[in-house]
Amino acid sequence: MKKHNFSAGPAILPASVLQKASEAVIDLNGIGLSILEISHRSKEFIAVLDRSVELVKSLYQVPDDYAVLFLSGGASTQFFMSAMNLLDDSGKAAYVDTGSWSSKAIKEAKQFGTVEVIASSKDKNYTYIPTGYAVPQDATYLHLTSNNTIFGTQFRTFPKTTVPIVCDMSSDVFSRQIDINQFGMIYAGAQKNMGPAGTTLVIIRKDLLGKVNRTIPSMLQYQIHIDQDSCYNTPPVYPIYVSMLTMEWIEEMGGLPVMEAQNKLKAEKMYQAIDSNPLFEGTVRPEDRSWMNATFILKDGSLESLFLKECDAAGISGLKGHRSVGGFRASIYNAMPLESIGVLTDLMDSFAQKHG
Amino acid sequence: MKKHNFSAGPAILPASVLQKASEAVIDLNGIGLSILEISHRSKEFIAVLDRSVELVKSLYQVPDDYAVLFLSGGASTQFFMSAMNLLDDSGKAAYVDTGSWSSKAIKEAKQFGTVEVIASSKDKNYTYIPTGYAVPQDATYLHLTSNNTIFGTQFRTFPKTTVPIVCDMSSDVFSRQIDINQFGMIYAGAQKNMGPAGTTLVIIRKDLLGKVNRTIPSMLQYQIHIDQDSCYNTPPVYPIYVSMLTMEWIEEMGGLPVMEAQNKLKAEKMYQAIDSNPLFEGTVRPEDRSWMNATFILKDGSLESLFLKECDAAGISGLKGHRSVGGFRASIYNAMPLESIGVLTDLMDSFAQKHG
Repeated sequence: MKKHNFSAGPAILPASVLQKASEAVIDLNGIGLSILEISHRSKEFIAVLDRSVELVKSLYQVPDDYAVLFLSGGASTQFFMSAMNLLDDSGKAAYVDTGSWSSKAIKEAKQFGTVEVIASSKDKNYTYIPTGYAVPQDATYLHLTSNNTIFGTQFRTFPKTTVPIVCDMSSDVFSRQIDINQFGMIYAGAQKNMGPAGTTLVIIRKDLLGKVNRTIPSMLQYQIHIDQDSCYNTPPVYPIYVSMLTMEWIEEMGGLPVMEAQNKLKAEKMYQAIDSNPLFEGTVRPEDRSWMNATFILKDGSLESLFLKECDAAGISGLKGHRSVGGFRASIYNAMPLESIGVLTDLMDSFAQKHG
Repeated sequence: MKKHNFSAGPAILPASVLQKASEAVIDLNGIGLSILEISHRSKEFIAVLDRSVELVKSLYQVPDDYAVLFLSGGASTQFFMSAMNLLDDSGKAAYVDTGSWSSKAIKEAKQFGTVEVIASSKDKNYTYIPTGYAVPQDATYLHLTSNNTIFGTQFRTFPKTTVPIVCDMSSDVFSRQIDINQFGMIYAGAQKNMGPAGTTLVIIRKDLLGKVNRTIPSMLQYQIHIDQDSCYNTPPVYPIYVSMLTMEWIEEMGGLPVMEAQNKLKAEKMYQAIDSNPLFEGTVRPEDRSWMNATFILKDGSLESLFLKECDAAGISGLKGHRSVGGFRASIYNAMPLESIGVLTDLMDSFAQKHG
């Protein structure tokens, strides 16, 4: 039976990407060797890495004063590594707290300087994106989480400020057009829109580096990874390769303008189904709803397990909400086809007819 | 044409592992989803992780007072993370310097306490394993690199000491039987004997932790990864999966006694060919020669490129020595068949007949 994969991450990847990714495990481009067993310094892998950097630059129109890195350790490593590299002991960084991921970033950054939480939506269980705050002009950077996978919120626009924005885009990277010049640094774990788990994209404006005084282990210095083109040590070869395939797919589909249009359409269909159905209810303030993760509940919580059972029977997987919030979460990343959303919304309708 | 993959790492994996690894990218165990797109908290992946830990424990007969972790960031991250977690500012660690990898580990550890290099083979370009040194009784740990991929040296036995040994086994993990009780901690990047690049095995005696006073970012604390069963954040799912398949293959082949016997046989065949051939010369003191990476040179260096060209024509790949030392290096890990070594040694013989 065809599965409709609504998992929040690691998440659905395009079928054509999976096909190529599977073939390369046996033989990469007919060289007679698997992508899993070639040296990271072979010309074949250097070509993969170069192409991956080129794709990031072309999709986001990244200017030359930024570096593009493929690291490991996930966004959780970037929570502290960004502060370790950018924030001096005597410096201050501003953070907007939009839930779990921001909270973790805040906690880790505190080891390296002063952290000022300038806005938070904690008062309403992170169901909205805060507005109306001022960014302190003396902040080294402003940290944001562009999309919160757990609560289902997303920044529609980013604050206008001259303070460099450091943005965790793990769950909406490559999902829409952005002006890269608004950001000092972007980081993203691959496992939603970019590829499988195991690599982390970092895009960083190079002039932000070299301004802290602490001693940093080599593997944690952005500058070393920049100088070594992400090959200071053996990088996560296969996750980078599959990320390259996924970015090629994005490009072939028409790039970020097309992703954005499709994601908007898919999100509208999803939220329309939630709003029009008397049994279900969205959990996020409408203007802050994520185009990537639609969170909702059954007004009658006692029907939850029955609904999940019907989902399972219809081949819908990964719909259960995050263990810290409950309810449901439809993760509808780039690779999610409109048809699969239709299967879910049809099921919601028929469920309402039976149980409404 | 069949390729004979002598790459030092990422390196050859068993053909049956690659076959299963390729299939799982399309569909994992018939669940209708790819291993690349399932949640790391799904029951399918938890089963992979549990099985991987179980295999490590069974292959090395790991007692219950040790924890088994699958992390990311490579051995290069362990160079500093081991010292960061084990060595207090006021403490001292002893290191044996057997070349590049040890040297990097020494450099990184110096940030966290006193590092005493108690032995080194630098005087002879790391062509032997030092002996006859005393391990200071007040050292927090003794750090060793069990096998040096670049120079082709390997500890045949480990020093007898009551000081806990921290050992980088990246390039000979699961290649032979060891007594795990001799070690306080073992770490190994997967990309030689264990799997593809992207995950790092850590086996650590739990009582060594909790003894340093510094503040450590969450992602760098072994204790947090232990408490969260390697799922504090999204782990490198696919590299762990393929490592599991490779460990299953090792088990099916008969486990470490069989790996050890085969590796010994393969190494003997390789070194016998080097020693008996008038054109070639081994670079390492015979008793310290690695069973994993056989390093050798052509006495007449001007023939090098011609030999590599003939290797290429015979389907032999990855034989060029590390860029920092030159010459040749035949990496003959667990998955390397005796037949492929035969192809190489036959070529060396015929090369000698033509050019000797």
